[in-house]
Amino acid sequence: MVELRVRVEDLVALVGAEHVLTEDVPARYTQDLWGSDRVGHASVVVKPASAREVAAVLKLCNDHDQPVVVQGGMTGLVSGAVPGPEEVVLSTERLTTVSPVDLAGRTVTAGAGATLADVQDLVAQHGLLLPIDLASKGSATIGGCVATNAGGVNVVGFGMTRQHVRSLEVALVDGTVLTLSTPLVKDNAGMDLKQLFIGSEGLLGVVTSATLGLKPGSLTRTGAFCAVADVDAALTLLNTLQRKLPGAVTAFEVMWEDAYRTVEPSGIRLPLPFGHPLYVLVECRGADPDGDAERLAAAVEGCADVLLDAAVATNAQELAAFWAARERIPAEILRMQPLFGFDVSVPAGSLEKCLDDMRAELRLSWPAVKLLVFGHLGDDNVHIAVITGETTRERKPEVEHIVYRLVTESGGSISAEHGVGFEKRSYLGYTRSAEEIALMGRLKQLFDPRGVLNRDRMIPWGERGTWQSEASASPQG
Amino acid sequence: MVELRVRVEDLVALVGAEHVLTEDVPARYTQDLWGSDRVGHASVVVKPASAREVAAVLKLCNDHDQPVVVQGGMTGLVSGAVPGPEEVVLSTERLTTVSPVDLAGRTVTAGAGATLADVQDLVAQHGLLLPIDLASKGSATIGGCVATNAGGVNVVGFGMTRQHVRSLEVALVDGTVLTLSTPLVKDNAGMDLKQLFIGSEGLLGVVTSATLGLKPGSLTRTGAFCAVADVDAALTLLNTLQRKLPGAVTAFEVMWEDAYRTVEPSGIRLPLPFGHPLYVLVECRGADPDGDAERLAAAVEGCADVLLDAAVATNAQELAAFWAARERIPAEILRMQPLFGFDVSVPAGSLEKCLDDMRAELRLSWPAVKLLVFGHLGDDNVHIAVITGETTRERKPEVEHIVYRLVTESGGSISAEHGVGFEKRSYLGYTRSAEEIALMGRLKQLFDPRGVLNRDRMIPWGERGTWQSEASASPQG
Repeated sequence: MVELRVRVEDLVALVGAEHVLTEDVPARYTQDLWGSDRVGHASVVVKPASAREVAAVLKLCNDHDQPVVVQGGMTGLVSGAVPGPEEVVLSTERLTTVSPVDLAGRTVTAGAGATLADVQDLVAQHGLLLPIDLASKGSATIGGCVATNAGGVNVVGFGMTRQHVRSLEVALVDGTVLTLSTPLVKDNAGMDLKQLFIGSEGLLGVVTSATLGLKPGSLTRTGAFCAVADVDAALTLLNTLQRKLPGAVTAFEVMWEDAYRTVEPSGIRLPLPFGHPLYVLVECRGADPDGDAERLAAAVEGCADVLLDAAVATNAQELAAFWAARERIPAEILRMQPLFGFDVSVPAGSLEKCLDDMRAELRLSWPAVKLLVFGHLGDDNVHIAVITGETTRERKPEVEHIVYRLVTESGGSISAEHGVGFEKRSYLGYTRSAEEIALMGRLKQLFDPRGVLNRDRMIPWGERGTWQSEASASPQG
Repeated sequence: MVELRVRVEDLVALVGAEHVLTEDVPARYTQDLWGSDRVGHASVVVKPASAREVAAVLKLCNDHDQPVVVQGGMTGLVSGAVPGPEEVVLSTERLTTVSPVDLAGRTVTAGAGATLADVQDLVAQHGLLLPIDLASKGSATIGGCVATNAGGVNVVGFGMTRQHVRSLEVALVDGTVLTLSTPLVKDNAGMDLKQLFIGSEGLLGVVTSATLGLKPGSLTRTGAFCAVADVDAALTLLNTLQRKLPGAVTAFEVMWEDAYRTVEPSGIRLPLPFGHPLYVLVECRGADPDGDAERLAAAVEGCADVLLDAAVATNAQELAAFWAARERIPAEILRMQPLFGFDVSVPAGSLEKCLDDMRAELRLSWPAVKLLVFGHLGDDNVHIAVITGETTRERKPEVEHIVYRLVTESGGSISAEHGVGFEKRSYLGYTRSAEEIALMGRLKQLFDPRGVLNRDRMIPWGERGTWQSEASASPQG
C-alpha cells in the first residue's frame, strides 16, 4: 500500500470516523460506471458533509502536498474521477441538501452530491423543468454536471449545463469557500468568476453547491422517428422543424443503421424497420395538448421529400418506445467489447466525409473494422464506437490518432460533452492551441499551486506550461 | 498636456500615420453617448486594422508602462471607455471585417468594430437572427457587446451576449493573439477560456473578433401592450404567456406610469391611455403568420383577471408603435436633467418593496424626489431614474448609497447589464464578496501584470487585492 501524506486521523478529525473509509473500499469508489482503462485504487475515501468540511479537507491535503480526487456519481467517461493509490478520494455524496424551489425566481440550489434525477423530480413537482438530461441522471450528480459542463439529450433545445448555472459555491485548496455570482439572470457586476469552474473538471476548485435556473415545465411532449438517406436530409428535417415549430425541438438524436441494428437481439419494439441509412428521433415540447401532436405530424409531413419513412408518436407510450430504442443503443454497443468509444463534435456538414475517411483509414489496419455511430446531431455531436476486433487495448492510441486527427481536420473537437480527464489529455492539443493549453496551466497554477486537486487530469501536472503574460516574444511568438 | 510614455512615431510605425490621431481629436473619442460625469481627454487615438496590430500596440504600450483604453461604439453607460489624458485610446473602428455567414453551422464571425446593427442586418438576409438587441445597436460594436456581456430587450427570450458567443479572438498585453474555443455548440475539450473575456470589460485582453451563434429568423412578431395593477400581476401575465406560448416570449418590458407619462410631450401615439399603475410591452416571435397574432390575443385574454387594459397589435405598424412608446422613454427621461440613472437587478418578487423603500428613504433628503422606473421585468432588471431636483452632482454618492444598499438588501445586483466601469466601481463590494473582488484582481494581475489595459475600471489598480491561493488563514478566513 502506498503511504499517504496525510494521516487518516487528521481526516477523521475533520469529518468524523464514520465518514472516512480505509478498509474494503467498495468498487464504486474505484471504477467509472462503464469501466475504464485506468485501474483505480482507493486507499482512503473522505465524505465531508458541508462546504466548510470540503474546504478543510482540501486545506489539510494542500498543506501536506497530498493529492485529492473529487468524486460525484462516477458516471464520467474519461476516467477523471478514477483514483490512483496515492490519492485521497473526496466524495461529495453527503452534500445532498437541496433548497426549496424558488418559484418566483425559478431557481433551485442543490448540493454537489444531489443526483440530477432527484433535482429534476423535485422541480417537476412545481411544474418546472431543469433542462439538463442525461441517461445517467439517476447517479450523475449536480456537482459533476457543473464541473464537466454536462451535455445530454436536450442541448439542442436548452443548451449545455453552463447555461443553467446561476451561481456556484466552490471550495478552494487554500481552504476558502467562495460564493460566486447571484441567482439573478442578469448580474454584470464584475467578472463572472463562476464560469471558470464550469467545465474545468475540478482542476481549479470543488463545486460544493450550485444554484440552477429552471424553465416552465412543458405540458406536452411529442415525437417522431424518421428514416432518412443521409445527414443532409437529417439537417433539412431539423432546420424545417426548427423554423416551423420555433423553440419546440428539444431533442434531435441520430442513429446510423449499424448502430440501430444493435438493438435487434434485445427484442425491443422497433419504431421503424431496418434497411434505411439513417434514423432520427425528434422530440418537441409544447403547451397545447389538443394541437401539438397534430402540429408535429403536419410539420413532419411537410418534410416528406427528405423522408424515407416516419412514425409520429400519437401518445406518451409510443414516444417512450422511441426513446427506449434510442437509449438501448449505448448499452448494446458496450456489450460488443472489444471496442473503442469516442465522443466528438464534427460540423454536421462535414460529418459524412469525416466518417467515410475514418472508415477508410481504419480499414487499412483493421480490414473488418466497424463504426457504430449515434448521437446528438442537433448539436453536431456524435458518439462513435470503433470495433476493430482487437482483443487487446494496446493499439488504442493508433485508433485514437486516426479518429481525433480526422475529427480535427473536419473542424471538430476531440470532446463534445464528455470532457478530457485522463482519457483524452494526450489529444487536447488537437483541438486547443498550445497557448490555450498553457493558459489553462497558468490558471491551474493560480488556483492550485501545488497541484493537489485532480492532478494530472486534463493537463499533466508536469506539463502545465510556461505561458508568460509578460512574454518577450514578438507578437508572432 | 500630459506626457505619454510611448512615442507617437512608434505607434505610427505600427498602424500608419493616417491611423494615429493626435491633434483635434473629435469629441466622439472622449465622450460616452449619453455623456458622463467623467471628463474625457484623448491625447492620442490609435486605430489598428487587425488583431496583430492590436497586439503590437498593446505590447508596445505594455513595454513602456503606457496605459491604454479600448473603445468600441462609445455607447457604454459606466464611463468605461472614457479616456484619461495619460491614456492611449485604442479604437476598434477599423476591425470591421465580417465573415460570410456559415449557414450550416449557423454562425458568423465579426470583427470587434463591426456594429451590432450591421451584423444583425447581414444575418437577416439569410433568414437568421443574431439575438442580441439594444437601442444603441447602430453604434454599439460586437467587441463592446462581448466585453460587457451586453443585455438588451431580448434577454428574456434568448439570454445575454455570453450565450451567443462561440469563439473569440483576443489580443493580450504581452503581444499574443489567442483564438479561444471553436465555432462548435459543444466543445468540452479543456477549460472554456473565452468565458474569462466575456463581460470582463476589457480588463484581461482586447476582443478583436467573435464568432457568434445564430438562431433561425422568426416569421412573425406579435405583441401586446397591457396595463396592470402591480408587479405581481405583471409576473402572472409573464408566467402565463410563457406557459401558454412556450419559447415565444422574446421581450417583456415594463414601465411605471410616471415613466410612461414622460412620452406625453412628444405627441407620440399612446398604445394605452395614462392612469394605470404599470404598463407592460410583450413581444412574441413565431412561425405561423395565420395564427400567431390570434394565439397571443387569446393568451392575453386568458389573463383578463390580472389586466386593467390591453391592446394587441394586429399588424407590424401597431407593434412598431408599441415599441416606439417604450423606446422613447429613456430619451425623454434623459432630458429631465438633473437626474441620477441606475441599472440594477432586483428579484421581481421584491421589486415593489425595494422601490417603495427607496422612495421613502430618498424623500428624507429630497422631499420632492421622483423615481421613473422602466426596464426588462422578464429578467428582473429595471432602470431607475432618480430625480432629486439637485442642480449639482455633488450629492450623487448619497443617492447611490441609498439605491445600491436597498438593491443589495433585496438580493439584487448593482449592475444588471451596464457593467461597472468607473461609475460603479465603488459599489462592486455591495454585490460581490471581498474574496470575489480579490480574485478578479488576481486574474487582472495574471493577464495584465502592469495594469496598462483599461486601468482603474471595475477595480482600482491600486486596490487589486491580495487574494492568496495559498492563504494561511483558516477555512473561516
